[in-house]
Amino acid sequence: MFLHIDDLLTRDEVSTLAELARHTKFISGRLSNPHNTTKNNVIQDPADASGKQASQIALTAIQRSEQARNFVLPRRIAIPTFLRYAQGMTYGAHVDAAFMNLGGQLLRSDVSCTIFISDPDSYQGGELAIYLGTETVRVRGKPGSAVFYPSTTLHEVPAVTSGERLVMITFIESQIPDQMQRDLIYTLNEVRALEGLKMDWSNRMSLEFVIANLLRMWAR
Amino acid sequence: MFLHIDDLLTRDEVSTLAELARHTKFISGRLSNPHNTTKNNVIQDPADASGKQASQIALTAIQRSEQARNFVLPRRIAIPTFLRYAQGMTYGAHVDAAFMNLGGQLLRSDVSCTIFISDPDSYQGGELAIYLGTETVRVRGKPGSAVFYPSTTLHEVPAVTSGERLVMITFIESQIPDQMQRDLIYTLNEVRALEGLKMDWSNRMSLEFVIANLLRMWAR
Amino acid sequence: MFLHIDDLLTRDEVSTLAELARHTKFISGRLSNPHNTTKNNVIQDPADASGKQASQIALTAIQRSEQARNFVLPRRIAIPTFLRYAQGMTYGAHVDAAFMNLGGQLLRSDVSCTIFISDPDSYQGGELAIYLGTETVRVRGKPGSAVFYPSTTLHEVPAVTSGERLVMITFIESQIPDQMQRDLIYTLNEVRALEGLKMDWSNRMSLEFVIANLLRMWAR
Amino acid sequence: MFLHIDDLLTRDEVSTLAELARHTKFISGRLSNPHNTTKNNVIQDPADASGKQASQIALTAIQRSEQARNFVLPRRIAIPTFLRYAQGMTYGAHVDAAFMNLGGQLLRSDVSCTIFISDPDSYQGGELAIYLGTETVRVRGKPGSAVFYPSTTLHEVPAVTSGERLVMITFIESQIPDQMQRDLIYTLNEVRALEGLKMDWSNRMSLEFVIANLLRMWAR
Amino acid sequence: MFLHIDDLLTRDEVSTLAELARHTKFISGRLSNPHNTTKNNVIQDPADASGKQASQIALTAIQRSEQARNFVLPRRIAIPTFLRYAQGMTYGAHVDAAFMNLGGQLLRSDVSCTIFISDPDSYQGGELAIYLGTETVRVRGKPGSAVFYPSTTLHEVPAVTSGERLVMITFIESQIPDQMQRDLIYTLNEVRALEGLKMDWSNRMSLEFVIANLLRMWAR
Amino acid sequence: MFLHIDDLLTRDEVSTLAELARHTKFISGRLSNPHNTTKNNVIQDPADASGKQASQIALTAIQRSEQARNFVLPRRIAIPTFLRYAQGMTYGAHVDAAFMNLGGQLLRSDVSCTIFISDPDSYQGGELAIYLGTETVRVRGKPGSAVFYPSTTLHEVPAVTSGERLVMITFIESQIPDQMQRDLIYTLNEVRALEGLKMDWSNRMSLEFVIANLLRMWAR
Repeated sequence: MFLHIDDLLTRDEVSTLAELARHTKFISGRLSNPHNTTKNNVIQDPADASGKQASQIALTAIQRSEQARNFVLPRRIAIPTFLRYAQGMTYGAHVDAAFMNLGGQLLRSDVSCTIFISDPDSYQGGELAIYLGTETVRVRGKPGSAVFYPSTTLHEVPAVTSGERLVMITFIESQIPDQMQRDLIYTLNEVRALEGLKMDWSNRMSLEFVIANLLRMWAR
Repeated sequence: MFLHIDDLLTRDEVSTLAELARHTKFISGRLSNPHNTTKNNVIQDPADASGKQASQIALTAIQRSEQARNFVLPRRIAIPTFLRYAQGMTYGAHVDAAFMNLGGQLLRSDVSCTIFISDPDSYQGGELAIYLGTETVRVRGKPGSAVFYPSTTLHEVPAVTSGERLVMITFIESQIPDQMQRDLIYTLNEVRALEGLKMDWSNRMSLEFVIANLLRMWAR
Repeated sequence: MFLHIDDLLTRDEVSTLAELARHTKFISGRLSNPHNTTKNNVIQDPADASGKQASQIALTAIQRSEQARNFVLPRRIAIPTFLRYAQGMTYGAHVDAAFMNLGGQLLRSDVSCTIFISDPDSYQGGELAIYLGTETVRVRGKPGSAVFYPSTTLHEVPAVTSGERLVMITFIESQIPDQMQRDLIYTLNEVRALEGLKMDWSNRMSLEFVIANLLRMWAR
Repeated sequence: MFLHIDDLLTRDEVSTLAELARHTKFISGRLSNPHNTTKNNVIQDPADASGKQASQIALTAIQRSEQARNFVLPRRIAIPTFLRYAQGMTYGAHVDAAFMNLGGQLLRSDVSCTIFISDPDSYQGGELAIYLGTETVRVRGKPGSAVFYPSTTLHEVPAVTSGERLVMITFIESQIPDQMQRDLIYTLNEVRALEGLKMDWSNRMSLEFVIANLLRMWAR
Repeated sequence: MFLHIDDLLTRDEVSTLAELARHTKFISGRLSNPHNTTKNNVIQDPADASGKQASQIALTAIQRSEQARNFVLPRRIAIPTFLRYAQGMTYGAHVDAAFMNLGGQLLRSDVSCTIFISDPDSYQGGELAIYLGTETVRVRGKPGSAVFYPSTTLHEVPAVTSGERLVMITFIESQIPDQMQRDLIYTLNEVRALEGLKMDWSNRMSLEFVIANLLRMWAR
Repeated sequence: MFLHIDDLLTRDEVSTLAELARHTKFISGRLSNPHNTTKNNVIQDPADASGKQASQIALTAIQRSEQARNFVLPRRIAIPTFLRYAQGMTYGAHVDAAFMNLGGQLLRSDVSCTIFISDPDSYQGGELAIYLGTETVRVRGKPGSAVFYPSTTLHEVPAVTSGERLVMITFIESQIPDQMQRDLIYTLNEVRALEGLKMDWSNRMSLEFVIANLLRMWAR
């Protein structure tokens, strides 16, 4: 499942991030994935102070979003990082690494997140393309919006043909690694939130009985 | 989980079964479990015509019970059979065989069922005792009632100290072998049945989405 | 994952099916799903002879398609059936039943299939909409094409606003019920087919070792 | 499965705990579960010094019990806390949260534990009622005794109708979250403890081979 | 795990099979596995009457062996077939197909079986070599002996350098497809058989409780 | 699967370890496994400084070996320790404990490792014998070589009949506890390493898609 949140960031945060990006040092995206010859973009230098400030803003925004929490059931979140695609840049079809280093520990990437900073009217091409066999989901979000999608998919950023695409990306380890299982718990939680007060107390308890036991069964 | 149904059989069926039992030939219960020296009861001769008629009545009663179907999610049901405990008879703590022969095919016993025929006031001792570690669930049903319980448990029929206990027993292979998983699907189905019409259509669809996918995931 | 096959049916088969549809008796689609008040379409009468002939043509086409076989790893296929949406007809968001009756046995629906008969230019609305959370995959196929998609999804046919939409649908039980697991085996099989002859023999054997053992592990 | 230990606490510890309870500040139980309107009891103020002393005594008692360790296979134990039910107080049917905060980390509640402090003759009602479908296990322990039961169950404390019920409760994360799997390992360990010295060496090794590999397979 | 049975066949059966082999028509082994260019042996023509008689003798021998039954927990057994390796013949490293056709149904190969007919002194090379990473298990059985080994392994028959190697092979679908799980149940069953009568009754029941529930949990 | 690495240690490291062993205090091996009366060897005193130096050399050697890393997918490695078998010493058939203490945390033993220090020509008997049912894998490595094998096996060191056998042993917790699953990931990684550059880019991405998703699915 996908979750597209229109306003993960406030307008002010979008402006701040765009401004911080202008002062952030960018380095070749190939550094984090040297073997992927189709990767041609630039990422924020992990040591850059402006970049670090931006990362913190994005992290806070994800953590405060109840919608994101309910959908992802996050355990740990990697440090969000700027990605910039100038004209002609691209990131060929790839799969995100299953495990990443987060402060000396391994973080399993279950859910990937792209936060859009650039205005979609300011660049052409460069949409996030997620391949589901012969069908493709294509996402070009408004500034401040974010899409959460399964890290298990093959996905691509086709070449930006004009303008510049600035996004932040991150990866989240969920309590529930299996996508289908995570979707089922998310869906039951939504039913409880939307119907709970209308339900007979004993039926509500039944629903909580199921949700709690699925969490115990599937959390890993 | 346990399901005790008060009126699995009609009064007439109870009378008919009690009458059929009087004409049925009984043989040593040890024949079906020769190694269990604590088994001391008598069971219906599988070849006996009255017994066969009784088996069919009990089978039909189980199949028509919506409550039983919802709880057990049955795939196949073994042939119900009379068990009689005269005074002094008993069946020591045991576990039901995991696989049984049903018409040349293996039936996995997931749920065990005892249908009570004798009046509980007409005999002493002989209750069905199901051990859950240091706690014990004890069941003495009224005529025509039935209890469905996990075949995975260690259970016992302590000695009948006076009177005679007549029951029918059978074993059911469920679509969902794991008890906890079966309980969760049963519980969600109950919520749907009790709340479904009060729910917003999209929430009801969400609940059906979860139930259908748990069934696909867990049926074996 | 999705698989869209452009030419599941030959042109002649499409013509034959369109012709057979004209002679087939249709009945209310609600009959197969009486509780779903959002279902408003017509389906072929299962007893109709022309319809039976059409079902057989569609079934054969699915069975002969190597692409479909590789993708679905089918065990059993339900009888394909015509669905017709005249102007104003629709089938609201729903989830396919997990188990269906196929000749007295239960068939688990793992993969759903829609075969397109009408020309997409001859009707408006009525595309197959498959919901993946906040993103939606929409499919309007050419005559003779077919889409295979996970039965686990919530999906919908929005109202046909002009013209008439004629499709055939069916449901397939796969050897590998879990979608992700099925996708992984499909993907490895594709790699073997495309790279196998270029690979060192021992590496090819390694790949076959993995595929065979995943099949053993996951088939259900 | 259930484990009821008669003497988890010594008589002296029971006296000490009863005394500490008299000096402990209690607050509304609703604070830890604000949405559950059926919860009407009082719990120890987490900041209270007497209460902290009591918690430590109870924790030590659980940790030193070999019986408890064998049964629960504990990984981490939440801080035990006093619960007091004055006359009229109750805690309606509920399910324990699947995950709890323990010092900034999530603890999965697999096994729940109630330690009885009050004399069961000093209050009426207020027994621990654990629902297993249509059967119910009811526990009223002697002072110093404790019951360990699956956190996966729906359970309730019916209203205390006279006197006062004082207990301590806690929640334990087991190495083996699945109840059935935990029961099987516990049972094999008991067989080894009780029969091991009588067994041929190679059979004893066979039993250890099975236990060690089940632990590897199921620990999570 | 491996099971080598010394006397699966009686001496008379070995003679009969050797004699039947002389009258059986053999065809290229490549026919059953056309893509494997390293397969160079001859197999019995499935239509040959002498061969069919031989198959039946081998099948009966496997079915009557209690040791084999306990080890394999068989559900269905493929038709045993002669394989002959004349001088220079070989079957390169390969993995057995996961699913085979048995009378129109799919049989999952969980356990492979080689029955040795030739005297190991009458040929050189041609031992069954089973690869376990950098270690190799090599088996050259006496006439009438048989080895049962996991179908999940990569294995090979190196070239026969002198003489002729005649064996029969078959494939068995087990109730318990996972090798480790099958080994654990086998091991517990052996403990019960060897220690059961020495054990306290309640401990024996505990062991049966575990075995029955592992069977329910793992049979597929 | 087994992995035998010929040169885990350099010649210099072997000499250093042999020298350190001469200065290390050894204590009864029974101390770490008091109930196993068949254990008769000596192990390094955990407090000994020379021993600690040796442990560090062995640990570093394992960590730097790419072959070992690929095969074991290690998460944590127990402290390697000397084991010495003088003439007549032995360690009867046993299974390694599933969980061990490593710095206050539990380490699950998935893969066991024996590093050979003594020249195999300098002692008789004392080979590592790993039982796979009726077949046995026997390993007598050269100085500096190491064998990695599943901790799940029953294994033994038969009596040293002359000379002295000096080895170091350790236990590794893998990201992938199940042996078969670990073998499949290892095998796919080998295929990628050996064929990756020859493969079409999209097929290589397909292989990475499978590997990454198996890691997510199975890591525990």
